[in-house]
Amino acid sequence: MAYDGVKKSEFSIVGTRTRRPDGIEKVTGKAQYGADMSAPGMLHGMILRSPHAHARIRSIDVSGALAMPGVKAVVTQADLPDTGDQSLRDVRENVLAGEKALYDGHAVAAVAATSPRAALAALEKIVVDYEVLPHVTDVDEAMKPGAPIVQAGRADESVPEGFSENVTGHWEFGHGDVDAGLAKADEVVKRSFRTAATHQGYIEPHACLGLLNAEGKGELWCCTQGQYHVRSVCAGLFGIDEAQLRVTPSEIGGGFGGKTTVFIEPVALALSRKSGRPVKIVMSREEVFRATGPTCSSSIDVEIGMTRDGRITAGRAYLRLQGGAFPCETAYMAAQAAFAAYDLQAVRTYGYNAMTNRPKEAAYRAPGAPMAVYAIESVVDELCQKLDLDPLEVRLKNAAKKGTLSSYGPTFNDIGLTATLEAAKAHPHYSAPLGPNQSRGISCGFWFNFGGNASVSLAVDPDGTVSVTEGNPDIGGSRASISMMAAEELGIPYEKVRTIVADTASLGYNDTTDGSRVTFMVGLATIEAARAAKAEMCRRVAKLWDLEEDAVRWEDGAVHPAGPNAGKHPPMTLAEIAAIAGNTGGPIAGHHEVNAEGAGVSFGVHICDLEVDKETGATKIVRYTVFQDAGKAVHPDYVEGQMQGGAAQGIGWALNEEYIYGEDGRLQNPGFLDYRIPVASDLPAIDTVILEIPNPGHPYGVRGVGETSIVPPLAAISNAVSRSIGVRMSQTPMSPPRILAALKGR
Amino acid sequence: MAYDGVKKSEFSIVGTRTRRPDGIEKVTGKAQYGADMSAPGMLHGMILRSPHAHARIRSIDVSGALAMPGVKAVVTQADLPDTGDQSLRDVRENVLAGEKALYDGHAVAAVAATSPRAALAALEKIVVDYEVLPHVTDVDEAMKPGAPIVQAGRADESVPEGFSENVTGHWEFGHGDVDAGLAKADEVVKRSFRTAATHQGYIEPHACLGLLNAEGKGELWCCTQGQYHVRSVCAGLFGIDEAQLRVTPSEIGGGFGGKTTVFIEPVALALSRKSGRPVKIVMSREEVFRATGPTCSSSIDVEIGMTRDGRITAGRAYLRLQGGAFPCETAYMAAQAAFAAYDLQAVRTYGYNAMTNRPKEAAYRAPGAPMAVYAIESVVDELCQKLDLDPLEVRLKNAAKKGTLSSYGPTFNDIGLTATLEAAKAHPHYSAPLGPNQSRGISCGFWFNFGGNASVSLAVDPDGTVSVTEGNPDIGGSRASISMMAAEELGIPYEKVRTIVADTASLGYNDTTDGSRVTFMVGLATIEAARAAKAEMCRRVAKLWDLEEDAVRWEDGAVHPAGPNAGKHPPMTLAEIAAIAGNTGGPIAGHHEVNAEGAGVSFGVHICDLEVDKETGATKIVRYTVFQDAGKAVHPDYVEGQMQGGAAQGIGWALNEEYIYGEDGRLQNPGFLDYRIPVASDLPAIDTVILEIPNPGHPYGVRGVGETSIVPPLAAISNAVSRSIGVRMSQTPMSPPRILAALKGR
Repeated sequence: MAYDGVKKSEFSIVGTRTRRPDGIEKVTGKAQYGADMSAPGMLHGMILRSPHAHARIRSIDVSGALAMPGVKAVVTQADLPDTGDQSLRDVRENVLAGEKALYDGHAVAAVAATSPRAALAALEKIVVDYEVLPHVTDVDEAMKPGAPIVQAGRADESVPEGFSENVTGHWEFGHGDVDAGLAKADEVVKRSFRTAATHQGYIEPHACLGLLNAEGKGELWCCTQGQYHVRSVCAGLFGIDEAQLRVTPSEIGGGFGGKTTVFIEPVALALSRKSGRPVKIVMSREEVFRATGPTCSSSIDVEIGMTRDGRITAGRAYLRLQGGAFPCETAYMAAQAAFAAYDLQAVRTYGYNAMTNRPKEAAYRAPGAPMAVYAIESVVDELCQKLDLDPLEVRLKNAAKKGTLSSYGPTFNDIGLTATLEAAKAHPHYSAPLGPNQSRGISCGFWFNFGGNASVSLAVDPDGTVSVTEGNPDIGGSRASISMMAAEELGIPYEKVRTIVADTASLGYNDTTDGSRVTFMVGLATIEAARAAKAEMCRRVAKLWDLEEDAVRWEDGAVHPAGPNAGKHPPMTLAEIAAIAGNTGGPIAGHHEVNAEGAGVSFGVHICDLEVDKETGATKIVRYTVFQDAGKAVHPDYVEGQMQGGAAQGIGWALNEEYIYGEDGRLQNPGFLDYRIPVASDLPAIDTVILEIPNPGHPYGVRGVGETSIVPPLAAISNAVSRSIGVRMSQTPMSPPRILAALKGR
Repeated sequence: MAYDGVKKSEFSIVGTRTRRPDGIEKVTGKAQYGADMSAPGMLHGMILRSPHAHARIRSIDVSGALAMPGVKAVVTQADLPDTGDQSLRDVRENVLAGEKALYDGHAVAAVAATSPRAALAALEKIVVDYEVLPHVTDVDEAMKPGAPIVQAGRADESVPEGFSENVTGHWEFGHGDVDAGLAKADEVVKRSFRTAATHQGYIEPHACLGLLNAEGKGELWCCTQGQYHVRSVCAGLFGIDEAQLRVTPSEIGGGFGGKTTVFIEPVALALSRKSGRPVKIVMSREEVFRATGPTCSSSIDVEIGMTRDGRITAGRAYLRLQGGAFPCETAYMAAQAAFAAYDLQAVRTYGYNAMTNRPKEAAYRAPGAPMAVYAIESVVDELCQKLDLDPLEVRLKNAAKKGTLSSYGPTFNDIGLTATLEAAKAHPHYSAPLGPNQSRGISCGFWFNFGGNASVSLAVDPDGTVSVTEGNPDIGGSRASISMMAAEELGIPYEKVRTIVADTASLGYNDTTDGSRVTFMVGLATIEAARAAKAEMCRRVAKLWDLEEDAVRWEDGAVHPAGPNAGKHPPMTLAEIAAIAGNTGGPIAGHHEVNAEGAGVSFGVHICDLEVDKETGATKIVRYTVFQDAGKAVHPDYVEGQMQGGAAQGIGWALNEEYIYGEDGRLQNPGFLDYRIPVASDLPAIDTVILEIPNPGHPYGVRGVGETSIVPPLAAISNAVSRSIGVRMSQTPMSPPRILAALKGR
């Protein structure tokens, strides 16, 4: 749907920096996160995990655990019915291992007891007889014929010959004759890259409280980005009706894609069903690292040709993504995102997903795009260096624009890449002199954004305040932005609106909070729901005034007589209409359910200045600016926060973060001491420039902003480091030892 | 609105006895009641209560309490803002006393501490300087000029001269010339009656958990019949927006009208605001008795004339209701209900509400009607005795019917009184021989029923199950009956529907669960919401089939091609439509908001056989049958349960229950040991006969059934006792000492 009359100006609330609705609770520690729920008679669940990267489970003896004081139930995979659905089978296999433990940390059994201590003591009494098997944790090794097979029989038939059974997905995108294009180039760079698996860095470990009775009716409180998805998966796993499982999301202490999944929830429900008691499970940090989903690690080959004047003649990339012990589809997105910023005559990408003996990957902000764009933007930068061209000019010359046949198929509509590049070029940062020992890198970034299914209900309360009920956990300020759009549309103060995130029994279906979709999609549904409520109020007042429905109009939070009737009645405000709702037909509400297209793709450009300490290999970011098209920025603080947050995460990914697996296939750094995310002192103030190119797919022109900002940092930083040390870097993290090694090899 | 096409037969689910959705939780102790909620950092609140029936509060010194260990906040009325609104002022005054303590048990101050024990210890350190004032607890005494004045300045100006300032309400109903009517009678009986205040007998004491921050945003979990009412009152009291206060109702361990009120909730919120912590308050049984609302006690004068052949020529009643320390309007309903069962040429009722030094009355099942009807039906029975007429025949002869100008004003539409009387007359009970020492009493009963405001949302879940979201706490099985109506309308199994009771932020406004309105009103809204969802599904499938919207029809849970297109496509079931909702426009839902009339009045007839032990005065009910028009009985088990439950409560009221105030104005029996409600061994199996006379105001013909059944027992039992002992009884409870006294005075 295109909103021809996208509102482009004259906003009175949208675009301002309103107060955070969750601010007081969060800064005073009163917000209720996953671990804060409790219930009478509650038990505590703990999970026994495999110490082996790959092992056959010959037997599990739980009798010792059952005999321990306070233990009320022990479950293994046998307690989860096998419904036969393959996607559910993977969840079942992941949340409690079956014939094999597939990775270090894979859940094997779980205990529910009257205290965490009692549950922990009981875990130690569970005897698992393992037959240790050969393992593989590297994506290139895993793809080779002869590699240890993680799960037999899962290979994708479409994968070309010459790969092992671990390759479970293969996708190709592109158009034109790449070899012919490369032949036309003055310079061709071909280079291979590797990126490490990284953690989303959410501070709150997964936690839930589950209750499932013998009749198949359940309640689940959990920290999730998608309560409806959790409902669907858990209901499917237990073979119960979705309507019978009520899932309530808590506040969320960070997710970034890592909480779009289900890990402990079915275990809590299984323990509850068996014990007849509510069961709470809270992961430790070590469990989060060992057994939830990081992003994919990758191995990527890129070849790009460029003419002397900076025209890209062709590009090709092979993207091999390591997705852990189960099939995944991240390479599908990586292969699409890789060249999306360019208007190319010839381009082709090949994406492969391979299984390894690692935890199954989970989404992480723009999944697949950061590593793909890192590789492409590194090669483009190297070409600019070799041809002595300005890297922003080259991007501008080749930028995808309206009408471009994108590298992944669709033809672009209005997109903001050129405007973003021009803003970067014009910005003082790009022309600022570099200090001694400093260098500058830039990169574009791209993300699809997503619309999807949303249900919103808006109720006009008796006192003229407004309650908006939406179903997407607020991970980036959506309660504020949704309230703002409702207030804007209704013409009432922002403070008069409260938006809450409903449980699955209180509101119809919503897709998960991901894909940068919520402010766009839930906002759209909220505006439509507010319009429905306004129409209803107009109808009622018209009837009161004995006028036709179209003889009144809504303006500034009130119904006015319109046209020839103007002035015949004083306007009737929303609060006045609300006060007499019972006399005009009953409660006033507006509702909207929709699955909308039109989210609109998103582009960003990052500029990074940094210094490398040539003696220690340490890198210091000295200046960083993010340029991004937000469509209409509903709440600029939050938009800037998304832009800064993505950049900060990308900086960590580029410089320090990695899952380190030993020869034994075990994770060596399962904690924030050894897995180092950037802290405030590692980062400069990150500047932001919001561009507002209205998205025609949204009534206020809003575009998703949450994910794009993590895409450019890897290349922007790698390009700056490479220019600084005179060696082209091709692996993340560019940690001090790796930079020292590069300097030595120079 | 009249539903001309009321569905009268061919129900497949409505009318069956489906499984209770809350059964397992309730019988296994897992249902969450008010006291079961907890929150991290929660404090426990305790309330200090006046030991005096009436006292000026000279000062309250809380410093000793504040110095006690674990105490985080102490509040008095000064912590509740005075918003100036009189109805809120009464609530404010009742939940925490101001200048005066108005009754024994009146809350004076409250403490929040880290444990109940610490809070209790701190209460003892609060020093209140009382000046004890003269008190009055009897309604007739209170109405006399010169009585102690409970609250000055609250008298109703419409009250005729000669009453004290305690009389705060006065209403008159009726038509015709009563004196002329009485003059035409062959027999006139004039008699005075008194009924005691009684408790609703809910087992679960009031409990809540409240959180209110400095910004005016709050959460409240509580046991209530009306979360929206609690929201409105509390938001008003604190001057905050309704949208900012989210009220979630718990399961309810009985209410019967007693939980339509607010007692501890504002105190918990005030303590929370002051301490910055969530605060839980759970009343003790003694607090429930001393400080929540019982029903009104009453003093009633009745005069009725009858011809020899049993025609009532005229009736008149003066109804004086004692409503505790605040104005109330129960006499307004009592005065309307008194003669409602009769088709009279001349009738007049006068209702008076008077304040006393007792806790403010609260609603109790058909408020005002049991005592009014008790008095009228006793006199009618006495007339029948005197004129040697069959009491059922006399009721039939004088029964109100369609077209009757009712005693309270409106002209009746379709009503089921005659049918109910005929069913009683034809029933074996009425003609069964009485055993030795047994006698039989009958009585009619009446209640208005109510429609009111309802909001319902119905979501079709992705797996084809259905979630219904309604906003009325389930006190009598409404989750079952609502699910049944949704399933019936959609043509899917009952088990595929789950109905939940939403919090105030998740659904638009609903009136309180009272007035026998929920199955009628929420059912109506649910059926309309289901119809909206069906219409949406028809639209989508028509589009898929490339047909016009009216070229398809809904039948048996599926969309079928209709008319000339019949058979062109196989029917598409709700589950199939749900599975592809994302591809046909997004989530599927139906919504309905309405304030409907058409609840339809309700009549019942009770027959009671009993024995009186002339030596002890003890009464034993030996047979009891309830006849009542339910419209369509959606779930007969629950309808019978309502009929039996009301009868049981009425039996307790008639025979044993009373609030006993001493000379000092203090309640002498604040507990279930000294306030004796009937237990199972006190009661016979209560037989029920459901009549189903469709209510034209509801699409399935449903009528409210919850309240009428408490109206007839007082008179039915009094009539039986009077006939048994040969003395006309005129006071409840007819406890053994009172019956013995009557026997002695014979």
